[in-house]
Amino acid sequence: MHSFKELIAQFNQYFDQQKFPEQPATLYNSASHILNMGGKRIRPVLCLMGNELFNELNPDAFEAGTAVELFHNFTLLHDDIMDKAPLRRGKPTAHTVYGESAAILAGDVMLINVYEHLNKVNAGYKQKIISVFNRAAIEVCEGQQMDMDFESLDPEAVQYDDYVNMIGLKTSVLLAASLQMGSIIGGAGDGNQQHLYAFGKNVGIAFQIQDDYLDAFGDPEKFGKQQGGDILVNKKTFLLLKAFELCNPAEKEQLKKLLTSSPDDKVNKVLDVFSSCKVDKWAEKEKERFTQLAFNNLDEIAVLSARKEPLKELANFLLERQQ
Amino acid sequence: MHSFKELIAQFNQYFDQQKFPEQPATLYNSASHILNMGGKRIRPVLCLMGNELFNELNPDAFEAGTAVELFHNFTLLHDDIMDKAPLRRGKPTAHTVYGESAAILAGDVMLINVYEHLNKVNAGYKQKIISVFNRAAIEVCEGQQMDMDFESLDPEAVQYDDYVNMIGLKTSVLLAASLQMGSIIGGAGDGNQQHLYAFGKNVGIAFQIQDDYLDAFGDPEKFGKQQGGDILVNKKTFLLLKAFELCNPAEKEQLKKLLTSSPDDKVNKVLDVFSSCKVDKWAEKEKERFTQLAFNNLDEIAVLSARKEPLKELANFLLERQQ
Repeated sequence: MHSFKELIAQFNQYFDQQKFPEQPATLYNSASHILNMGGKRIRPVLCLMGNELFNELNPDAFEAGTAVELFHNFTLLHDDIMDKAPLRRGKPTAHTVYGESAAILAGDVMLINVYEHLNKVNAGYKQKIISVFNRAAIEVCEGQQMDMDFESLDPEAVQYDDYVNMIGLKTSVLLAASLQMGSIIGGAGDGNQQHLYAFGKNVGIAFQIQDDYLDAFGDPEKFGKQQGGDILVNKKTFLLLKAFELCNPAEKEQLKKLLTSSPDDKVNKVLDVFSSCKVDKWAEKEKERFTQLAFNNLDEIAVLSARKEPLKELANFLLERQQ
Repeated sequence: MHSFKELIAQFNQYFDQQKFPEQPATLYNSASHILNMGGKRIRPVLCLMGNELFNELNPDAFEAGTAVELFHNFTLLHDDIMDKAPLRRGKPTAHTVYGESAAILAGDVMLINVYEHLNKVNAGYKQKIISVFNRAAIEVCEGQQMDMDFESLDPEAVQYDDYVNMIGLKTSVLLAASLQMGSIIGGAGDGNQQHLYAFGKNVGIAFQIQDDYLDAFGDPEKFGKQQGGDILVNKKTFLLLKAFELCNPAEKEQLKKLLTSSPDDKVNKVLDVFSSCKVDKWAEKEKERFTQLAFNNLDEIAVLSARKEPLKELANFLLERQQ
């Protein structure tokens, strides 16, 4: 058994050996560009952890991990084009450096490479691994489309449950599938695979609620982002959508007005509405609810509880919980 | 054994049963849009023919055929975005109808679906099938990038051999891989697979030379396209690149001038240079050279020659040869 930190180090060592061909340079420089921006490599580590929950680490988990990390970066590359984002992690995005066509194509070639890695896993579970991956990959695309569809609607027109569904698809199913793929490599049975998948999905949703909460109410110095960044761009978040459900008619009017204007104190005024309708308290509870669901899922997995410790640690770390 | 026409009918019946989910509508309508434009479905029929060259038709060849047809349409969808093409087959392209973001994402979800079909083939040759497909798919992307890179260069700066290589990657390797995938499903050995692959690649290049030739010198009524369409948009073709090699300094100057201007009689003037430097005769010979290479490859395949008849017929049909 290895700690989260040890697994990240092991994976990075493996992942950094993978190189794209040198030619055509425009194509592969664009693909390398997004990978060189770094990242926490959470998803591949979930593959390794899913494997180690049930068995010794198998080289196939590194292949599956490489596949999900390439896929995740492919989605970032194409999402940045769709969002017309000039920057990612403070650096120019691939399409601004290499042009949109090269960036579309670089994403495509990365997605094909995903399957080069999945194709290396043992024939005994190859079909199952590709199938679990494909379902998640398709759902990520569906989630992205739903997100774009929601963006064109008024916040009031988006149902909270639809939003949870969208966020689940866009951000959580790949975490869940990463764990499940690892567990398949580790030899887990169907029931254990499903509990682990559910754990990953619920942790993902709790994390996203926390992310929205911290953007609004977090300490900007600690969080490393501008406070209220989501509010400034009228981003649909758990908080904004739920606020429309929770607030009274006067607050609702105020919120609508704030969304169509940009006063200097927009962030503070929106935060005042959020606080008065107690959507901050609601978010804390909702995050806790999904966290609890996740830990219940983990409890259901039929392995010695000592083996679950790294996953508990990771969830507590991601969800900023004190033990 | 089935004829080309019978195999097309069988494939279409199978392919048309495949439906995308209904939601999210923007995503899947955009994917269906390109498929509904039709097409000759040559590539999947090559899968079926590659299979039948060695054995009875296997349902796996329909899965592999569906995969290559989806992949081909995915490339058209993304290429149209890169080329900013408003029309395909006289109809508005997917990105003009559904927006660029939905079209990028629809291509992505189609590419993932490719692997859903490849994942259905027998475990005994799944790894090999995915591996052959992936190599071709990566090469198609590389060819597309090389094509875009060449577009920004002067025609004189593009070497003929590099252009043949690019065209091979962009248009021929998928034909070749379709045949090879079918042959794997039919149980062919490595040697026969390679000969069949080479046959497909050489037919593809001969076809592309013919396509360039007909665009310039073909009968517009028979060809169904405007004569000299490539010339009008200064498209790099076999003819233009070779003309720069074959023509004398005066002709070269004239060609350069014509490329930077658009006189009313541009097409005729370029055709005059093509004729005087005999690039038309060269193209006929070059097409014949690749065709001969292809038929030599077919001869090398160790099966009864009667089994090769449908492939010969298809090649003669595609290359407009009288038997």
